Amino acid sequence: MSRILPPDVSEAHFDAALEKFRSVLGAEHVISTPEELEAFHDPYPTTSEPEFLPGAVVFPSTAEEVQKLVEIANEYRVPLSPTATGKNLGYGGAAPRLSGAVVVQTARRMNKIIEVNEKYAYALIEPGVTYFDLYNHIQEKGYNLWVDVPDLGWGSVVGNALDRGVGYTPYGDHWSWQTGLEVVLPDGDLLRTGMGAMSNAKTWQLFGYGFGPYPDGLFTQSNFGIVTKMGIALMPAPPATETFLITFDKEEDLEQIVDIMLPLRIGMAPLQSVPVVRNIILDAAAQTKRSRWLPDGGPLTPEIINQMKQELNLGYWNMYGSVYGSPPQIELFLGMIKDAFTAIPGARFFTTKDRAEDTPGSHILHDRHKINQGIPSIDEQQILEWVPNGAHIGFSPISEPDGAEAMKQFEMVRDRSYEYGPDYAAQFAVGLREMHHICLFLYNSAEAADRERTIALGRKLVAEGAEHGYGEYRTHLQLMDQVMETFDFNDNALLRFHERIKDALDPNSIMAPGKSGIWGARYRDAGHQLPR
Amino acid sequence: MSRILPPDVSEAHFDAALEKFRSVLGAEHVISTPEELEAFHDPYPTTSEPEFLPGAVVFPSTAEEVQKLVEIANEYRVPLSPTATGKNLGYGGAAPRLSGAVVVQTARRMNKIIEVNEKYAYALIEPGVTYFDLYNHIQEKGYNLWVDVPDLGWGSVVGNALDRGVGYTPYGDHWSWQTGLEVVLPDGDLLRTGMGAMSNAKTWQLFGYGFGPYPDGLFTQSNFGIVTKMGIALMPAPPATETFLITFDKEEDLEQIVDIMLPLRIGMAPLQSVPVVRNIILDAAAQTKRSRWLPDGGPLTPEIINQMKQELNLGYWNMYGSVYGSPPQIELFLGMIKDAFTAIPGARFFTTKDRAEDTPGSHILHDRHKINQGIPSIDEQQILEWVPNGAHIGFSPISEPDGAEAMKQFEMVRDRSYEYGPDYAAQFAVGLREMHHICLFLYNSAEAADRERTIALGRKLVAEGAEHGYGEYRTHLQLMDQVMETFDFNDNALLRFHERIKDALDPNSIMAPGKSGIWGARYRDAGHQLPR
Repeated sequence: MSRILPPDVSEAHFDAALEKFRSVLGAEHVISTPEELEAFHDPYPTTSEPEFLPGAVVFPSTAEEVQKLVEIANEYRVPLSPTATGKNLGYGGAAPRLSGAVVVQTARRMNKIIEVNEKYAYALIEPGVTYFDLYNHIQEKGYNLWVDVPDLGWGSVVGNALDRGVGYTPYGDHWSWQTGLEVVLPDGDLLRTGMGAMSNAKTWQLFGYGFGPYPDGLFTQSNFGIVTKMGIALMPAPPATETFLITFDKEEDLEQIVDIMLPLRIGMAPLQSVPVVRNIILDAAAQTKRSRWLPDGGPLTPEIINQMKQELNLGYWNMYGSVYGSPPQIELFLGMIKDAFTAIPGARFFTTKDRAEDTPGSHILHDRHKINQGIPSIDEQQILEWVPNGAHIGFSPISEPDGAEAMKQFEMVRDRSYEYGPDYAAQFAVGLREMHHICLFLYNSAEAADRERTIALGRKLVAEGAEHGYGEYRTHLQLMDQVMETFDFNDNALLRFHERIKDALDPNSIMAPGKSGIWGARYRDAGHQLPR
Repeated sequence: MSRILPPDVSEAHFDAALEKFRSVLGAEHVISTPEELEAFHDPYPTTSEPEFLPGAVVFPSTAEEVQKLVEIANEYRVPLSPTATGKNLGYGGAAPRLSGAVVVQTARRMNKIIEVNEKYAYALIEPGVTYFDLYNHIQEKGYNLWVDVPDLGWGSVVGNALDRGVGYTPYGDHWSWQTGLEVVLPDGDLLRTGMGAMSNAKTWQLFGYGFGPYPDGLFTQSNFGIVTKMGIALMPAPPATETFLITFDKEEDLEQIVDIMLPLRIGMAPLQSVPVVRNIILDAAAQTKRSRWLPDGGPLTPEIINQMKQELNLGYWNMYGSVYGSPPQIELFLGMIKDAFTAIPGARFFTTKDRAEDTPGSHILHDRHKINQGIPSIDEQQILEWVPNGAHIGFSPISEPDGAEAMKQFEMVRDRSYEYGPDYAAQFAVGLREMHHICLFLYNSAEAADRERTIALGRKLVAEGAEHGYGEYRTHLQLMDQVMETFDFNDNALLRFHERIKDALDPNSIMAPGKSGIWGARYRDAGHQLPR
């Protein structure tokens, strides 16, 4: 493979920048050979030819080093692409949107847990701290605190919050629980937000708003800076918790499930956090291989799906959630939840006590029980064993939490999925007032035809979703321009606004060009964006 | 009084702009005579000579009209100063930071309740909608929804959220419950945030984040645009509620009060929302006049304070809060709260059932009971009757929710208040992880000496607070530069960041110059800011 450079940087300039990066970090913390860079490719490629390839990767150890890297990048106009652990695998991993950009990987060497405060229930951390790291630290110290974890606990706490990822306890909206940032801006300046902007305040992790405009949200899903520290609120551990599973037999039960769920969720009781409603394909993929059901390949027919339900003792839809509090409160809430959902014919209610972990189809209930009490897990990566060279991309439209709407979306995606080929592993979650429909399309990433039909399906659904008024809440590198384009109010006023901020903060367009569809003047002028 | 113009706009240009404003709005919606403008002065002036005087006031009726006003302002470089109802009286009311600016008063004609959705529990409103308006609308429709209200319900729901004001139900952090903005930017462009950025999305009020950077916080306490619509989540009405009052006899009980409160609050049960701890001076001022206690004037001696406590049947500190849920849950939570706080010697516990509203000193308990269930009230304006021509300014430092810290702050402010003269009406509130200490200094605004000693006290406390690491969360026009200056990390990096955003969005510095200490290049160059 030939050397990858940014499209508008000469080899001489690029090499001069690398040399300066080495002088700041030490040569061992700058990598640039094709072999070394492979770990920073899109882990689930979606195109026939490789795309999103880094030109180099650098590993800073402090905010000061990040500042120096940014200054050098400006000097040579070398684009950077910050990443923490890069574990958002379905969205491109650590790969840069613009090929040739230098990945600034903060996780490897900036992984300090600076403080965990039990009294005030927060942590101040660097971007390399994973959910496992933070959880283990809390356990070692014996603090009575929970960290809300996403489905897979291997990623960065900071990175997940900045991507507006979610978990499943009452602290599941990770971004809403962040409490102050330290950011290296695209010109190398160092910003602290909230009370951290007052140098001797003792409340940086206690009061996120501070004084004046509240800019923190600008640094989510964005290319306006490199976050080097973040505060995150932790949940005081409740006295007890229990996790339930409710199975629903038929596809069309989804309508009633969502309509029953909304009033129980919007008042934050008895559904104190986000339950997930998973289809049988997702649940099967999380604990078996596709070849078990279809040794010779072929589509997932209704008969095969029925066989999965029977052998795994699950429904077409399977809802998992947890309740928290004193034992009497848990009993009360579980009773309310059971009564409400078992009104659907064929619904069956279980808790972890009803189904041992090693009985067929019960592993997920116990895995959710861990995740829903803040114990990180990576069991769900089993999904990638579903097909050989397993990969997935996500389509995650946002809609009203309404049963008929959920059915309409489900049918749209299911039918398109049959049409294009990839299996459709689905999950619905009612956040509070909105519904996330997380669709995972599972495919064999070693097969060019599989890659192409999967991304074609993604493109089709983004367009079709937008026609119905569904917007995505995050997306793969390959679809960022398209998704941002669908936010079309007043001639894409939102994107034009972001571009003004971008150009003010990053006049040389060196910070993650193209992230979330925002390119910076230098690349817009060069035609790197969909025409408007 | 001579005519007030912006410092750098000629009378000819100013008049030409007014003429164009009239042609857009109609002459009756542009006012500019000294008599008409008086209602837009700082309602509680703090200086010997008048300051913060508007040059004119305009009353647009639509976002499109606001866009046109902004375009005209750019053409003639006439500074604007947006306000909704202007009812944040202790912070300057509707008055502009820069004298001569044209106040854009959105409340009078942009007061539509565009939608209230009972199923999804939200409202979409214009900035003129007051808490009373929204409450009355909900009552008329019979919706089972609450709107969280601040102490005084006469103000704008949008304005309060944009100033990051608070209320007292579980929806008390108003900004955190906003769900999408429509904003006229300083160049006249129209932005919708969140899912509103997708023109046909049905989820504008359901999912605030949208896709890409989340900019909404930029429009709080800021001068980056004029908000013309906002979504706000409403609270599904709980089955029942009850309000309690706990009286504490001695000043020094504050330490224990705060230390007992934190663990009950941080887990969001049994204290499901923010209780307030008010000193006897605040409670006396809210239901009596100072002259009742001191007919001949003079300081509030310990004897007088004791007399207040006895006659009002209150303590030095009085804590008010509410619990929500099913009747058994309320009983359970009230019992836990009572047990915890009556461990303090002399503490007495009451609910609304124990003290009739017309018994001495009990009105506030019943007023809080209304406010804490979302019924707007303006009874607290009685405080302004405390002294003749009553006025107040606020000092509101943020600190750790720690008992010793609370005592230290209380003593600092109490002693400075005795030293400078104004009475110190105090309130402590533990939000979740931080403590707001809301100090109201009550003074006679008709007396120049009173005004001057009160603002001198404010200046002293901002400086002294900053030395101790206390930052203010909002402030009066007069103190904005000083407060922003105290956010001094890395050579005021936060302000420098805001200035870059400001200059990118508002190249002519026409939008509310000086708000929150942010001036825009044109006024910075002219020396309108503290030197750095």
